[in-house]
Amino acid sequence: MKEEILKLFRNSAGDYLSGESLSTELGISRTAIWKYINILKSDGYTFEASSKVGYKLISTPDILNHQEINPYLSTDYLGNEIFYYDSISSTNTKAKELAGDGLKEGTLVIAEEQTAGKGRLGRNWLSPKFKGIWMSVILRPDLNPIEASKVTLIGAAAVYKAMEDFNIKAHIKWPNDIVLDGKKVCGILTEMSAELNKIHYLIMGIGINVNIGHDEFNEELRQSATSLKLHTGRSVDRKRLTASILNNLEKLYNEFRISGTIESSVEICRNNSILIGRDIKIINRNEEVHAAAIDIDNDGHLIVKHADGTTESIFSGEVSVRGINGYV
Amino acid sequence: MKEEILKLFRNSAGDYLSGESLSTELGISRTAIWKYINILKSDGYTFEASSKVGYKLISTPDILNHQEINPYLSTDYLGNEIFYYDSISSTNTKAKELAGDGLKEGTLVIAEEQTAGKGRLGRNWLSPKFKGIWMSVILRPDLNPIEASKVTLIGAAAVYKAMEDFNIKAHIKWPNDIVLDGKKVCGILTEMSAELNKIHYLIMGIGINVNIGHDEFNEELRQSATSLKLHTGRSVDRKRLTASILNNLEKLYNEFRISGTIESSVEICRNNSILIGRDIKIINRNEEVHAAAIDIDNDGHLIVKHADGTTESIFSGEVSVRGINGYV
Repeated sequence: MKEEILKLFRNSAGDYLSGESLSTELGISRTAIWKYINILKSDGYTFEASSKVGYKLISTPDILNHQEINPYLSTDYLGNEIFYYDSISSTNTKAKELAGDGLKEGTLVIAEEQTAGKGRLGRNWLSPKFKGIWMSVILRPDLNPIEASKVTLIGAAAVYKAMEDFNIKAHIKWPNDIVLDGKKVCGILTEMSAELNKIHYLIMGIGINVNIGHDEFNEELRQSATSLKLHTGRSVDRKRLTASILNNLEKLYNEFRISGTIESSVEICRNNSILIGRDIKIINRNEEVHAAAIDIDNDGHLIVKHADGTTESIFSGEVSVRGINGYV
Repeated sequence: MKEEILKLFRNSAGDYLSGESLSTELGISRTAIWKYINILKSDGYTFEASSKVGYKLISTPDILNHQEINPYLSTDYLGNEIFYYDSISSTNTKAKELAGDGLKEGTLVIAEEQTAGKGRLGRNWLSPKFKGIWMSVILRPDLNPIEASKVTLIGAAAVYKAMEDFNIKAHIKWPNDIVLDGKKVCGILTEMSAELNKIHYLIMGIGINVNIGHDEFNEELRQSATSLKLHTGRSVDRKRLTASILNNLEKLYNEFRISGTIESSVEICRNNSILIGRDIKIINRNEEVHAAAIDIDNDGHLIVKHADGTTESIFSGEVSVRGINGYV
């Protein structure tokens, strides 16, 4: 009912709605309307009330629950079901639990804060409250585990496109980071449950530093991380950005579902790569190899050229750019 | 305490033990000894009691719990902790749950019966009560998911060696089945939780048809499956076989943990392969390719030769032999 009331206010384009018209439209009493308005107020919505003309919606809270994201969503299945948390240990951990319980492809876990946010290889991911987008999507691609990185590239391309919708020109650091000003602004953590040749489910965790301020990063993180706010000098609408990521993600993921190929995503990753044309370190456990990144092929592998002139196709692995200044 | 009492009886080599000596040895009253003996009787142990000389252990139940397997185990960590169930839906499912909770490498789940035993790709696995070995091991190899099949080969080699300890000459069907008389007698279901380039944990599910009789297989299964009992014409000791698998598995897995290589396991799989030297079908989703299996390389890949003379190295995938009669 809350969502229906909000929908009427949203469709009224900022006009007053009378208690009577709301009551008629929704088939509940004026007292019930009044009670729901009060609940919405305590949820963070503000209304102007006039005894003559009724209520006007003045502002909505900056939260990423279903009723706030849904107005901007144009997806068929991504985000149909959203598990929303004010605070959670890790959205990926919760999403794995839900996927194990059989929840459908497209189910989303979003939290305003992660108390134990995860990066790759067990690292921490800073996830301060209301300052970022911390979400995980359940996907069930019909893939061998060896091809899971394809889905990561689709995610990276979707985040890139969403930032482009906000006139923010980012770069993609194959296979799983988005970079601004040479610093990490978004990371994608892909986890899966699989047999040798079949993925049962895949969790795509997306963490974006949206409105994190300078002082919220510690000294060490400041060297390698940034936020959209630090880059643009202004706060960015988290709701619209979340919806834009999901809209782009569903479009690109559908290409893969239908054709089995990821060409559009690869093209985005290739054309906006921070690696291609640079010397990089390929770090994998105890090994570290230097090579030149020259391309991303249509299967999403990074093509590198070694010092001896041979080329190699890299599946995944920890790849970091050998740069003069810090992260890239 | 039950386990300690049984240990004393086992060490007594079939002799009588007086209530008094048991009481002294274990530091509990003779009444307590008498109560424990009764509990053990209800567990399926039989004793001969004589008022003059005490108790003698006559027989132990055919069950696969820790106290029955442990006397035959020579492992350091495999099976140190055993979660034993009279009946369970699936040992792999339980093992995944325990691994997610952080249980250590080597932890074992064993059930006398699986009510929803799993084969590969969501297939069923018949697991009648007390008639097989249905167990899952938690492993935590430091590996990329792409290399998970290496661990499957270690498992296949360990089961092969254990059967050899019983003078049963089986064959290995790369990468995950053991074959007798051209029929499947054991399957290994490897499942994992992973990031793109790191396995969090791996579950090795081992299902062995030990003492399943002719009539317990339905018509369809009888074409493709057999049991050790059907092959040898006699019942096989499930406890010793379970322990032998674990002893062999730890030895072969240790080679991999220490050196990172799986050469001993590959050698066993190569020398006793049912595929090498035959024409096979390589089935992977909608694709089916015919080729000749010619070798298994040191990384555990199956090397096949195509009709056009080119060779290919196969990671995993559903591989089935093109045979004239049934399964192989």
